[in-house]
Amino acid sequence: MTEVDLIIKNAHVFNVYLRKFLDLQVSIKNGKFYWINKELPNLKAKKVIDLQGKYLIPGFVDAHMHIDSSMTTPKIMGETILKYGTTTIIADDHEVTNVAGIKGLKEFINEDSPIDIFFGIPSSVPSTNPEMETTGGKIGVAEVKELLKDPRFICLGEVMNFKDMTSDKDTLIKNIINTCHKIRPTMPIEGHTPAYNGEDLAKILYAGVSTDHTQQTKKLVDEKLRNGMFVEVQLKSMHSDVINTIINNKYFEHVALVTDDSMPDILLEGHLNLLVKKAIKMGMRPEDAIYISTYTPARHMGLWDRGAIAPGRVADFSVLDNLKELSIIDVYKNGRSENEIVKTVSKDDYLPESLINTVKAYKLNKQDLLLKTDLIKNGTITANVIQINPVGTFTNHIQKKLAVHNGIVDWKSANLALIIVQERFGLNKGRFSLGLIDRGITGDGAVGATWAHDHHNLMVMGTNLDGILNIQHKLINQNGGYMVAKGNEIIANAPLPIGGVVSNQPIKILGEQVGNIRKNLVELGYKNTNEIMSFSTLSLLVSPNLKISDKGLFEVKSQRKVPLLEK
Amino acid sequence: MTEVDLIIKNAHVFNVYLRKFLDLQVSIKNGKFYWINKELPNLKAKKVIDLQGKYLIPGFVDAHMHIDSSMTTPKIMGETILKYGTTTIIADDHEVTNVAGIKGLKEFINEDSPIDIFFGIPSSVPSTNPEMETTGGKIGVAEVKELLKDPRFICLGEVMNFKDMTSDKDTLIKNIINTCHKIRPTMPIEGHTPAYNGEDLAKILYAGVSTDHTQQTKKLVDEKLRNGMFVEVQLKSMHSDVINTIINNKYFEHVALVTDDSMPDILLEGHLNLLVKKAIKMGMRPEDAIYISTYTPARHMGLWDRGAIAPGRVADFSVLDNLKELSIIDVYKNGRSENEIVKTVSKDDYLPESLINTVKAYKLNKQDLLLKTDLIKNGTITANVIQINPVGTFTNHIQKKLAVHNGIVDWKSANLALIIVQERFGLNKGRFSLGLIDRGITGDGAVGATWAHDHHNLMVMGTNLDGILNIQHKLINQNGGYMVAKGNEIIANAPLPIGGVVSNQPIKILGEQVGNIRKNLVELGYKNTNEIMSFSTLSLLVSPNLKISDKGLFEVKSQRKVPLLEK
Repeated sequence: MTEVDLIIKNAHVFNVYLRKFLDLQVSIKNGKFYWINKELPNLKAKKVIDLQGKYLIPGFVDAHMHIDSSMTTPKIMGETILKYGTTTIIADDHEVTNVAGIKGLKEFINEDSPIDIFFGIPSSVPSTNPEMETTGGKIGVAEVKELLKDPRFICLGEVMNFKDMTSDKDTLIKNIINTCHKIRPTMPIEGHTPAYNGEDLAKILYAGVSTDHTQQTKKLVDEKLRNGMFVEVQLKSMHSDVINTIINNKYFEHVALVTDDSMPDILLEGHLNLLVKKAIKMGMRPEDAIYISTYTPARHMGLWDRGAIAPGRVADFSVLDNLKELSIIDVYKNGRSENEIVKTVSKDDYLPESLINTVKAYKLNKQDLLLKTDLIKNGTITANVIQINPVGTFTNHIQKKLAVHNGIVDWKSANLALIIVQERFGLNKGRFSLGLIDRGITGDGAVGATWAHDHHNLMVMGTNLDGILNIQHKLINQNGGYMVAKGNEIIANAPLPIGGVVSNQPIKILGEQVGNIRKNLVELGYKNTNEIMSFSTLSLLVSPNLKISDKGLFEVKSQRKVPLLEK
Repeated sequence: MTEVDLIIKNAHVFNVYLRKFLDLQVSIKNGKFYWINKELPNLKAKKVIDLQGKYLIPGFVDAHMHIDSSMTTPKIMGETILKYGTTTIIADDHEVTNVAGIKGLKEFINEDSPIDIFFGIPSSVPSTNPEMETTGGKIGVAEVKELLKDPRFICLGEVMNFKDMTSDKDTLIKNIINTCHKIRPTMPIEGHTPAYNGEDLAKILYAGVSTDHTQQTKKLVDEKLRNGMFVEVQLKSMHSDVINTIINNKYFEHVALVTDDSMPDILLEGHLNLLVKKAIKMGMRPEDAIYISTYTPARHMGLWDRGAIAPGRVADFSVLDNLKELSIIDVYKNGRSENEIVKTVSKDDYLPESLINTVKAYKLNKQDLLLKTDLIKNGTITANVIQINPVGTFTNHIQKKLAVHNGIVDWKSANLALIIVQERFGLNKGRFSLGLIDRGITGDGAVGATWAHDHHNLMVMGTNLDGILNIQHKLINQNGGYMVAKGNEIIANAPLPIGGVVSNQPIKILGEQVGNIRKNLVELGYKNTNEIMSFSTLSLLVSPNLKISDKGLFEVKSQRKVPLLEK
């Protein structure tokens, strides 16, 4: 007679190996699944639950995400997404690492959480190089070796620098990849390979990259998968052509759904479950949608102990009362219900020392914002302008002819917005660069953040100079955040005191703050499927095509510095 | 213009992701696949090969095998199987570890080899415990931690002790599994779970075991796979019901072909290629048979850099001119042809210090071989007898009534054979135990070896007492081997001077020696599908049902010691 903690009767249990639901009884012992069978003779259970025909599916495993990209902490993230059925995440927290290096990262990830968190080693900090962007932290081979000592780090986080990665020379990122392969030959190398195909894609795979999670298209999914890349599909890639090519070609084995960057206001609605539900609505069999959000991501990460309802696996699962609607009515972690687990999480104060007081810039004045030129006194000049697209984070590199009056460029009459990116780690005297944006804020106002991928310097964009300055000053005063001004008045504010990138508020509050920012951005004419991310990635030097950092404007693929004003 | 080392044109290239052959060009650079495409514009190759429509398949990956179980060394094994298309093996060399601990193991695996060899950490040395068998080496938690420092060790080798593994107590094997999980959460735990099902199978999976490679049946494959076990199929499991259940249920994703123990004479004919060919002959699509011998074993072991013809993967592949016959006409390792690679392997003398002079037993005399009893002087007595089966390594526990004359048991008139197992590591004064065998050697002669799984003590069985003694003496004189006597004359001999388990001769010579032993065993009436392995596993205390060690007779599953003669 074996004693177990829990027996679940009368459930339709999802079997990831057969990709079928089977009518079984499930037993759980010490947080792991024990025997699962039609009948469980000779087992004695402390507790028996009769599910009366409800569905049991494994806990979701999110193989590619960033806790700090949701502007939140490991504990709050865990509490938030556990109720949506996500029980394991693999987090690449390169935002805090850009701010405060591995010292900051180690403090950040030491917070207790009700879910299981494994980590990617941030590989690209800075995402390019110190000539192109200033960061508070840096990752070199020594830092990678240090993090490899911690078994929670199970992959190399997204490798982004296409040029260095595919160079014939001995570059840092190549050394980092080689270090990982040498010390842990079985470690997956996560990539970030937007829109690369043909020989470029081969170069990336040749460099050792095993995965991509960026914007997918039907053509890219076909090509990546055929070439051996594990394809991660995030919400923005869930177009019908992408989903249909996965369904029609039965690509499931090499595909996973991932969240990457979940905005805090979206976390009020759901997490990976939203993607699974959407995949089902788009025509994917529920069995396949669940398979690619539980088993395939766990296997991809080598996590043999989860992603399945099977003996020996961690007893993480959700109870559904409607499969097609993916209605989750209960979630269990380590065989205990969500309510019970959340109570066990330490309530200790969370004070990552390296991540407080990180916004060290000086306050700008109106004079600083004048776009001056020595090239001509009066007439027109050609400016290199970042044009925002309505979908995704890629921008266009366009040129505009602008009027010059007394050596001052008039960008306003051309319906552009001004952008500044100011160094804020106290490393570069707060130096800043100026740029111009097309299709950004078109109304009267400004938006600013210290959450500006990936370097997270202080970035403000707007049409109202007082608005820009007010935001710039307040971001310094409150040690970081994300805010919007209408006219010159700040009307939406999400404080991010932890490293200037993370809030210490519950998701309910943070989500409302971010939702308010989004709403006001829309009212100011900002047009993008994800306004929050779109603004914050204007500074992301690895996402095509023209981007801006504290060091100036850069063409992403060639890493060529581009002057704001052409001679 | 990118310069590559080799371009292969006009090949049907096997794509493991689509499980299809595609007509492509393949380029190779520095030992890895580079761009693979219909056309390769702008590539400049040092060499171009036109395959004129031949087939290209990835190098075979053998996820479960023991080099020392083929009685050979890493170099000779590599040279032998590379030409059969096997380019990567994961070897659990627990034979030498049983003989000489991790000191011996480290020396053994340091030999250069033309193929890539990863290792399993021998988990079960001894396979049971020192009360049941005497071994030269032992593996404890400290030894496991030491081996975990070497990145070539990528899995925990087969865990065998069912009783300790599933015990509620704090056993050594449970501590070893926990140590691996703690230090490397993504490490597969290889199992050895013959004929376990139901709650027993659940217990094994609950203990953390992820794989099984033992004798499979249709029912066991169904149950193991559904319960999340990765199913490894070796030659002896390739029955039509097993293969058909894999084909009909499309189980390929969770299955691999493995060789486990390849006898040296079989290595004269082939390696993993023999299993692939057999699977195709049995009705499996060649695409699926190749997939489960390249991609699935590599993925199971977390080896993302191989098992596929795709950019970034190690350029290991075979050229076939007939797919159904699996006719391999050329093999490439790291993008170089087999001939070329074999030349690069160091020809240094190979002298693993801890593995010489390991047979330290005293010579027995006829008196030692008398089966005496104090129980009765004359009459009959009941003996517990090991009965060999014609297929596999399981034995039956039977009882026989035997005549006793003057306190000496007469086993000969009952058509049995005598077996002795003598401690030979100088640890236990050469003490030995006696047993009786049904359906062993029925003619006049004897067989003996120091290659006697897993403890590798000195084991001799026979009907001719002089033959037994001659073999016992000669095994001591030549420091180990495998030999057969007809009558009292030794007529077949495979010297195994390295640890008493491994030869230093080329496979051609060793294979002939072992083939000769097999032939003579058959002539002496030994009936089993693998006579060599059948005899050598009479001492394997984890393979059901009744086995013998230097400590006596044991019932495997209960680990109960059984008296040879019943009171």
